[in-house]
Amino acid sequence: MLLSETAENIKKMEIRGAGRIARAAVEALADFARNLDVSDPETFKREMQGAAGVLTATRPTAVSLPNAVRYVMRALDSFESVEAAREATLSRAAEFINHSEHAVEWIAEIGARHISDGDVLLTHCNSEAALGCILEAHRQGKEIEVYATEVRPRGQGLITIRTLNEAGIRTNYIIDSAVRYFINDVDLVIVGADAIAVNGAVVNKIGTAQIAHAANEARTNVIVAAETYKFAPRTILGEKIEIEERDPAEVLPREEAERLPFVRVRNPAFDVTPAEYIDLIITERGAIPPELAYTVIRDYLGWRIEEFR
Amino acid sequence: MLLSETAENIKKMEIRGAGRIARAAVEALADFARNLDVSDPETFKREMQGAAGVLTATRPTAVSLPNAVRYVMRALDSFESVEAAREATLSRAAEFINHSEHAVEWIAEIGARHISDGDVLLTHCNSEAALGCILEAHRQGKEIEVYATEVRPRGQGLITIRTLNEAGIRTNYIIDSAVRYFINDVDLVIVGADAIAVNGAVVNKIGTAQIAHAANEARTNVIVAAETYKFAPRTILGEKIEIEERDPAEVLPREEAERLPFVRVRNPAFDVTPAEYIDLIITERGAIPPELAYTVIRDYLGWRIEEFR
Amino acid sequence: MLLSETAENIKKMEIRGAGRIARAAVEALADFARNLDVSDPETFKREMQGAAGVLTATRPTAVSLPNAVRYVMRALDSFESVEAAREATLSRAAEFINHSEHAVEWIAEIGARHISDGDVLLTHCNSEAALGCILEAHRQGKEIEVYATEVRPRGQGLITIRTLNEAGIRTNYIIDSAVRYFINDVDLVIVGADAIAVNGAVVNKIGTAQIAHAANEARTNVIVAAETYKFAPRTILGEKIEIEERDPAEVLPREEAERLPFVRVRNPAFDVTPAEYIDLIITERGAIPPELAYTVIRDYLGWRIEEFR
Amino acid sequence: MLLSETAENIKKMEIRGAGRIARAAVEALADFARNLDVSDPETFKREMQGAAGVLTATRPTAVSLPNAVRYVMRALDSFESVEAAREATLSRAAEFINHSEHAVEWIAEIGARHISDGDVLLTHCNSEAALGCILEAHRQGKEIEVYATEVRPRGQGLITIRTLNEAGIRTNYIIDSAVRYFINDVDLVIVGADAIAVNGAVVNKIGTAQIAHAANEARTNVIVAAETYKFAPRTILGEKIEIEERDPAEVLPREEAERLPFVRVRNPAFDVTPAEYIDLIITERGAIPPELAYTVIRDYLGWRIEEFR
Amino acid sequence: MLLSETAENIKKMEIRGAGRIARAAVEALADFARNLDVSDPETFKREMQGAAGVLTATRPTAVSLPNAVRYVMRALDSFESVEAAREATLSRAAEFINHSEHAVEWIAEIGARHISDGDVLLTHCNSEAALGCILEAHRQGKEIEVYATEVRPRGQGLITIRTLNEAGIRTNYIIDSAVRYFINDVDLVIVGADAIAVNGAVVNKIGTAQIAHAANEARTNVIVAAETYKFAPRTILGEKIEIEERDPAEVLPREEAERLPFVRVRNPAFDVTPAEYIDLIITERGAIPPELAYTVIRDYLGWRIEEFR
Amino acid sequence: MLLSETAENIKKMEIRGAGRIARAAVEALADFARNLDVSDPETFKREMQGAAGVLTATRPTAVSLPNAVRYVMRALDSFESVEAAREATLSRAAEFINHSEHAVEWIAEIGARHISDGDVLLTHCNSEAALGCILEAHRQGKEIEVYATEVRPRGQGLITIRTLNEAGIRTNYIIDSAVRYFINDVDLVIVGADAIAVNGAVVNKIGTAQIAHAANEARTNVIVAAETYKFAPRTILGEKIEIEERDPAEVLPREEAERLPFVRVRNPAFDVTPAEYIDLIITERGAIPPELAYTVIRDYLGWRIEEFR
Repeated sequence: MLLSETAENIKKMEIRGAGRIARAAVEALADFARNLDVSDPETFKREMQGAAGVLTATRPTAVSLPNAVRYVMRALDSFESVEAAREATLSRAAEFINHSEHAVEWIAEIGARHISDGDVLLTHCNSEAALGCILEAHRQGKEIEVYATEVRPRGQGLITIRTLNEAGIRTNYIIDSAVRYFINDVDLVIVGADAIAVNGAVVNKIGTAQIAHAANEARTNVIVAAETYKFAPRTILGEKIEIEERDPAEVLPREEAERLPFVRVRNPAFDVTPAEYIDLIITERGAIPPELAYTVIRDYLGWRIEEFR
Repeated sequence: MLLSETAENIKKMEIRGAGRIARAAVEALADFARNLDVSDPETFKREMQGAAGVLTATRPTAVSLPNAVRYVMRALDSFESVEAAREATLSRAAEFINHSEHAVEWIAEIGARHISDGDVLLTHCNSEAALGCILEAHRQGKEIEVYATEVRPRGQGLITIRTLNEAGIRTNYIIDSAVRYFINDVDLVIVGADAIAVNGAVVNKIGTAQIAHAANEARTNVIVAAETYKFAPRTILGEKIEIEERDPAEVLPREEAERLPFVRVRNPAFDVTPAEYIDLIITERGAIPPELAYTVIRDYLGWRIEEFR
Repeated sequence: MLLSETAENIKKMEIRGAGRIARAAVEALADFARNLDVSDPETFKREMQGAAGVLTATRPTAVSLPNAVRYVMRALDSFESVEAAREATLSRAAEFINHSEHAVEWIAEIGARHISDGDVLLTHCNSEAALGCILEAHRQGKEIEVYATEVRPRGQGLITIRTLNEAGIRTNYIIDSAVRYFINDVDLVIVGADAIAVNGAVVNKIGTAQIAHAANEARTNVIVAAETYKFAPRTILGEKIEIEERDPAEVLPREEAERLPFVRVRNPAFDVTPAEYIDLIITERGAIPPELAYTVIRDYLGWRIEEFR
Repeated sequence: MLLSETAENIKKMEIRGAGRIARAAVEALADFARNLDVSDPETFKREMQGAAGVLTATRPTAVSLPNAVRYVMRALDSFESVEAAREATLSRAAEFINHSEHAVEWIAEIGARHISDGDVLLTHCNSEAALGCILEAHRQGKEIEVYATEVRPRGQGLITIRTLNEAGIRTNYIIDSAVRYFINDVDLVIVGADAIAVNGAVVNKIGTAQIAHAANEARTNVIVAAETYKFAPRTILGEKIEIEERDPAEVLPREEAERLPFVRVRNPAFDVTPAEYIDLIITERGAIPPELAYTVIRDYLGWRIEEFR
Repeated sequence: MLLSETAENIKKMEIRGAGRIARAAVEALADFARNLDVSDPETFKREMQGAAGVLTATRPTAVSLPNAVRYVMRALDSFESVEAAREATLSRAAEFINHSEHAVEWIAEIGARHISDGDVLLTHCNSEAALGCILEAHRQGKEIEVYATEVRPRGQGLITIRTLNEAGIRTNYIIDSAVRYFINDVDLVIVGADAIAVNGAVVNKIGTAQIAHAANEARTNVIVAAETYKFAPRTILGEKIEIEERDPAEVLPREEAERLPFVRVRNPAFDVTPAEYIDLIITERGAIPPELAYTVIRDYLGWRIEEFR
Repeated sequence: MLLSETAENIKKMEIRGAGRIARAAVEALADFARNLDVSDPETFKREMQGAAGVLTATRPTAVSLPNAVRYVMRALDSFESVEAAREATLSRAAEFINHSEHAVEWIAEIGARHISDGDVLLTHCNSEAALGCILEAHRQGKEIEVYATEVRPRGQGLITIRTLNEAGIRTNYIIDSAVRYFINDVDLVIVGADAIAVNGAVVNKIGTAQIAHAANEARTNVIVAAETYKFAPRTILGEKIEIEERDPAEVLPREEAERLPFVRVRNPAFDVTPAEYIDLIITERGAIPPELAYTVIRDYLGWRIEEFR
């Protein structure tokens, strides 16, 4: 697929999901590098930068996209010939795709170690990474039980309980409001993330912050399972992250809404859980306390502090 | 209506709602007293006690019912003749009904004083008493704005926003999970109650405790609007109150549930908000801090400490 | 002094200070009762109520005034003759004045018991009752040391340190901002009160709430010394009490203020310390935890819950 | 036994234990009343007051003793003849002894209701009342498990685990330092009390405050089981109660201590748990939140606020 | 200016202000390097170290001075010739001066992004960096309102409100004690810093810690604006930093003080705000959570952990 | 001593103590390297890795052992000849042993700076490093006083007070349960550590977490003194660390235990103190806030994030 095509598909949301978008962009970059017919190293770099810019511009607020592009582009930090640069680019692209494809599996393996036999878990929304940890622990023969929330307004909890049911894991299905009621019976909360800020705050499905707050009140540990490309260098002060509001009709049918002129639906898609309510973040590179978010961002994603805003 | 008929109707849930049940029982008692054809005061008292027992037995876990019956029966603590006893009984019955019927109105009047011009309020579920305060403040010309939650699984929030819309009050409709997200914009939380424990803990619609917890984190005041007959002498330790679980089908359609043998729906109707997260309880008798719950129970409902369990 | 004269003097603030206002009103009432030349008990009561109303109306937001008037007027709850009513009135008036005049002394005596040899105390503003406790402890030979704040904008701290210096008590004089800095060296905070709400919240000189908050963070006890006529039945929800703002010129000289059109001085005289930051309230009747504020209001001041708003 | 003999035995600690001391004093008072050969009611009262004074003076810091004496002496608040006074005295004495003897049993009955099937409990020291609740719950067939602490320096935990073992209750025996380690597995802490202050703070075996603090951190409920004669009107501010320090040799053998001149053993017998860490106090009269301690003191023990210091 | 002259001027406080001192020292070092007429690289380094030592010794407790000197001296970590060393030194010196001169401007630019349209801000003291953020946000057209404190004892708040007034920003001027009173109306606290410890604790004008504590209680974010040369590698444990006490006469006129022999003025210039009350530190290099203070110290200022004490 | 001998001695616990085990292993490795007669660098490395594996396997849960072995083995990350590799190995081994032997002394020197004249300290268990700081502060002439706990079940407190007594330091000896009782008199808690997790949580003698919790409640600082080889890269989530349970007979004599079939002794040796209750960790490399634990692990011990689990 041509670079411009990929860019178009990402823009139109024909490619969706943090992981899929990232891999598509990386593949487009690799393809572009492979076919770039120039002889001067500087020209190679400039052309690549142009391509990177085109891709990044398609979704200005996405987190995985600039992380992926930057991961590949670090190949061009220093090089000597066009061929060396091309090779380095392709190699980093392949590495990214490999890591990304195996990330959930590696997260599951690490996360399962933090689940003990007999644990009662609670999860919110439908995170592949969080569920991966639970399923892996179950596969290892640990006897576990799960509380899963409904997740209004889009009801992703239903997908979660279907997956858990299929695996034969004893599951309790509860409404989002009932978390504090049951939290004293829970040993460990495990959720995914949409983005992780420099200060370790976690942006995730609306409701996550309330759950972590209730867990904290009851001294219940909270684990976040997230691929490293979810770490977002530009989102520092958890509370100031711009949160997208989704279609009001998800909450209130349009015809009802029209009859209620004084009523406005507010439908934020995410909320921000402060780092102090999170005990551990499990990435495909290893498990870290939220205070190390910066380290991941710097060492694995290659951002410098000057680029944080 | 005969005593036995009323008893039957309460039992079969043909009479519903804390206030309506209480008033029906009181009317039945008054009717019974009016027609009780005995000449000996002791016999009068004994017969009345029997009638009270029949009524109380219809709904062993209700809160308003024993409170109402006991309110009337205190007329028989001391008396000299059948006629005096009858008169006292009828007078207390009339008083209870009068108070009960005006309770919401009186609560609204007191509660509105605690709402300031420019306040942003948040309410949960559809409490007549809590809404009464909001509507009254609006009627007095105070400019207010309200956040109202959806209230899964039965969606009482819809009724709430219709009422608020009709009154022309600017309202934001949000899912239950979004409360902590918006709480910093809220000046005052105002909710109703199903029961109030001796220690001031409030039993209310599931989700209330999470809201009060989030309000406490942000130093936002929480007001509970509740008639005195909601004060429950037998529910002392908030956390130990037995909470009824409702029909799983409210949360998960039966056909879906049948396909998920490992999944159990847990659907508690209420939760318990500890007194430390509540700033004020507004009753039709006056406004009190939660620590005074006992005083209401003793002085207005006539229970002694020995009866607390 | 005639009733109307006293009323006028209170209104014009020629009589000032919570205690002095209260005693003047009581004396005026007693005087009125003494000279009331009627023969019918009901007329006596009605006339007295009129006089009480005149006095209370002079300062609608004062706390001690209605408490004092009500204390005397309870003499008229039940009586049989004009003379009995007059006598009861005069007797309660004398009792109030006696209690009021000795209150600080009795508070000092009780308060001193809560100060141990070697204690380091901290006080804010210039409360006669709080200083009474400190001076009494010193008089008893306890070795104590005091931190006293400056108390912007009117600098009442200066009067406080002069009094402490005169008594020969080792004193540290600090700015209001320095309380948290020194609080770990302090064993006990002791302050006065302008009013005490039904829920035990304390209205006192601006800055008190910050001090109590810092004390709470360091597990340092906070004692409030206050006469019972400071208990205010109408101020239930600490946070909702209307706080008077004083002359901006206390903070910013008028000529400077005129040069700064975009600047507005906000000069609240008091703030509200929540009951959870207060360990003990010492009254002339005894020492109570803040949760018992209601009991004082009901049992000693004679207010019923219905009168709370 | 003569009054003087009883007084002597209490003083010499030949009669020990809060309950036994209280009952001995009451019996001595009753005996004294029975044999008091005077004809004038005033003389009867004066003589009785003298006897009460003798008994109370034997242990100035005991809590149950003045409570018991005062309970009986309230019989003399109003009376008409010597015989009426004598009768009232004997009747109240009998009532006190009866209540006191049955107190633990009644407490156990109430307390057991707050223990649910499957609960894991934790207890500290060896309280007859707390153990009573646990044993009664077990007798009712509830499946429970207990954590019991060692209780340095006198090892009362050993007696506790023997009792629990004898009843066939699954018990975990842990050192005092291990409470926070296990608290997340505990559903309910249940301890006794040596005294309960007016503000609901609980004086109990050293270590109790740390346990309640750890329970609070994990949102685990804490129940205190205590007879009403443990409520101490003169101990208001938890933190200021004078705590007795016991023989250093309990902690460090004398010969070792003599070799260590720079070392001083500090061996406080009790500590003070603030009311905010306690959820419920179970008395033989009923179960109350700690905020109601004052009510018990006033309504059942007959102390007025003026007597609090 | 000769090195010795600059050293003298810093010592005598003729050069003042963290930024100005730092730049003067760097200029002196650069000047010294420029004129250093030696041929052996080792001698060059040794001479430079001597010069650095002279400068650093002038103000042993300053923070910016050793940071600036060390920044330049890192040029001598490795080099090959005198000329290379000289050039590196001059280049780093120029870089430092450039960064330092633009630091406030860059901080303002970054900080303004964290201020939203409609925000109510609160600032304490008169920090150029904090005000820079506010002014920049205003310049960008964001509608903001500011609370500014008086800042006893030297009243720097007056300078702050004059600046804000000049810019046409709506400002509320309050005494230091009133912060908790108004904090619920504030969206963001923004202050400067005198030094930032390795653990992210902030040393700033006395009163800052109380403000941050009140903000934390109300879930209001706190931002600190500070140049990187404020990061102080030797001040690790916030609470143990030595705080300078200033002239007592700032608080109490000398003649008054002389009349009060038992009174001692305590006038600490700064206090320490723990990192847990701070959400973000904005430096000219980027915005960081306080946990990253160490990273700035290591990566930008070049200190190793061994040098922390 | 031969490698196999050392391995055997560690396994059989004839070599004990974190420091001694570490040094013995390093010496064995050095000895092995010295005598390794191979000519191919790769073979040298492989043989060394085998030896390292043998040593590490002797105590799979020890912390200092793998840290020590890894410290030496980093010499083999890159090298050119057998001799270069051998030399690097011996040099790193010597460095480790030197650091390890001086670690306590260096820690004491740094730690003493954080103890002020007049401080009251509290320590738990018998940590050479923590005591080192106290003794050094005393040696420097600072007037200090210490509270030392008894440390059930093995009574290490006795060794501690003997050491303190010998040094002539005023010491208070208390039972473990009494810490919260005395904590308001304490200025600084200083303890050792058995292991430090990546998130800064500290594994130490059972009871440490309760002490730190009580210190936190009273705003008392907590310092941990620990050699860098205590930092444990594989123990991330403090609460999930596997804690060894020791011989029940330490708590309950075997004969007593046999009489109590329903009683099980739970005797965990350590507990985990969360980083939020710790203010500073003092290592021989410098003093760091707990958030920097990761940095020590990475920069000094040479672990990468991928190795954390």
